[in-house]
Amino acid sequence: MSYKPTLFTCLSPALMHLYDLNDAIVVIIDVFRATSTIATALYNGAERVIPIENADKCKLLGSEIEGCITAGERDGKVIEGLQYGNSPAEYPKEFIKGKTLVLTTTNGTKLLHMALERDCSEVVTGSFPNLSAVCDYLGVQNKNVILACSGWKDKFNLEDTLFAGSVISRIKDNYTIHCDSSLMAENMYRLHKDDLYDFIKLTTHFHRLAAYGLYADLQYCVSIDVANVLPVYRNGDLVTQKTHNEA
Amino acid sequence: MSYKPTLFTCLSPALMHLYDLNDAIVVIIDVFRATSTIATALYNGAERVIPIENADKCKLLGSEIEGCITAGERDGKVIEGLQYGNSPAEYPKEFIKGKTLVLTTTNGTKLLHMALERDCSEVVTGSFPNLSAVCDYLGVQNKNVILACSGWKDKFNLEDTLFAGSVISRIKDNYTIHCDSSLMAENMYRLHKDDLYDFIKLTTHFHRLAAYGLYADLQYCVSIDVANVLPVYRNGDLVTQKTHNEA
Repeated sequence: MSYKPTLFTCLSPALMHLYDLNDAIVVIIDVFRATSTIATALYNGAERVIPIENADKCKLLGSEIEGCITAGERDGKVIEGLQYGNSPAEYPKEFIKGKTLVLTTTNGTKLLHMALERDCSEVVTGSFPNLSAVCDYLGVQNKNVILACSGWKDKFNLEDTLFAGSVISRIKDNYTIHCDSSLMAENMYRLHKDDLYDFIKLTTHFHRLAAYGLYADLQYCVSIDVANVLPVYRNGDLVTQKTHNEA
Repeated sequence: MSYKPTLFTCLSPALMHLYDLNDAIVVIIDVFRATSTIATALYNGAERVIPIENADKCKLLGSEIEGCITAGERDGKVIEGLQYGNSPAEYPKEFIKGKTLVLTTTNGTKLLHMALERDCSEVVTGSFPNLSAVCDYLGVQNKNVILACSGWKDKFNLEDTLFAGSVISRIKDNYTIHCDSSLMAENMYRLHKDDLYDFIKLTTHFHRLAAYGLYADLQYCVSIDVANVLPVYRNGDLVTQKTHNEA
């Protein structure tokens, strides 16, 4: 039997210390909406997305980088002093092409910085809009993988888990998986892959965002491959990974 | 609409701080095998089970309580200085009736002591062998409920989650449930309730215990209502909750 790298799913930032990130690829998952928005901005031609832990740093960087766009929301409104929100719909090609987006979010950017503090090999971001790009990339790396769910303020959430399950269902044959979280995630994805939008209506985060009327965002964020690029972290920026043809 | 108490499922001891335990009933769940063994010992007539965090305290208490039985395992073997293991099969009526069992386990007893340090109303223990007793008890309390999964060394596990799901599937109509963990747990239970033993063969903990040949234990621990009593915590002891008829 040939050697296969391992794959684990981490269900909350509060459980990240339990996993060995050494030399692993960490996939940051924040389906509603950070990693969906990151994929979309890059797909639409943003030069880079700078993920920032908090609004103050976001404002500071906004004043330092000429022509950049600062973005962040709390409770469904753009944070005072920032320019735009967390919705993928705010970043169409005609607006974002060639620009730098400085983005802060509640859960995803926090988890990304947690991963960076550890000794991992690579940090990428995943969401349904870039599912295939994530799977294609992992498929050729032959490295251990951590699927890292952002959750909601450290609590488990279903939308990130379902995305982890969708990745596992596609690539599991290439990995050694001894991980109940991964087994559960794949079961949940298989159970709901044909009624994804209806099922996520039952989740707590759906209700939180629906209260702000963000139905179009919610539907977009469970749409597969509509912004199919791979965001990779390079020296402070998330940038689009070039494909072999472009490299 | 009448008021309904809340129900949450906590998937790991490392997430317990995220939940409000104030005046709630906490159900400690450690399916393989602590809470299954506790239910069994009490069902078979043990006077009480004293849950202890570590082996040293267990030995000390064993020397202080006349005629008590000390029990605990690590890596499939009885801990040196203790008398018995963590298997429910070790505690039949003819052996345990009227006795005190001083028990230490890897995950369940740790979580129980975490709950006791908080301001909860009541701590009880749940497992498939006493599923109905747990549900019947919760059904008449009209209090907020936390289903607390012990996991494995703070990692998520499926067997505890499946038990939480079995409780939810029976009592959910009486609770307000805005909790993705509970939604997932009930989905997983509904998906596997008819192949519970086959499905748990895929879990990490099954493999850990099967390596010690403990197949009979594993099958017993997913058997519903075979030791149908309610263990409740009273001043350091887990004792059988008397039913209304007995009280």
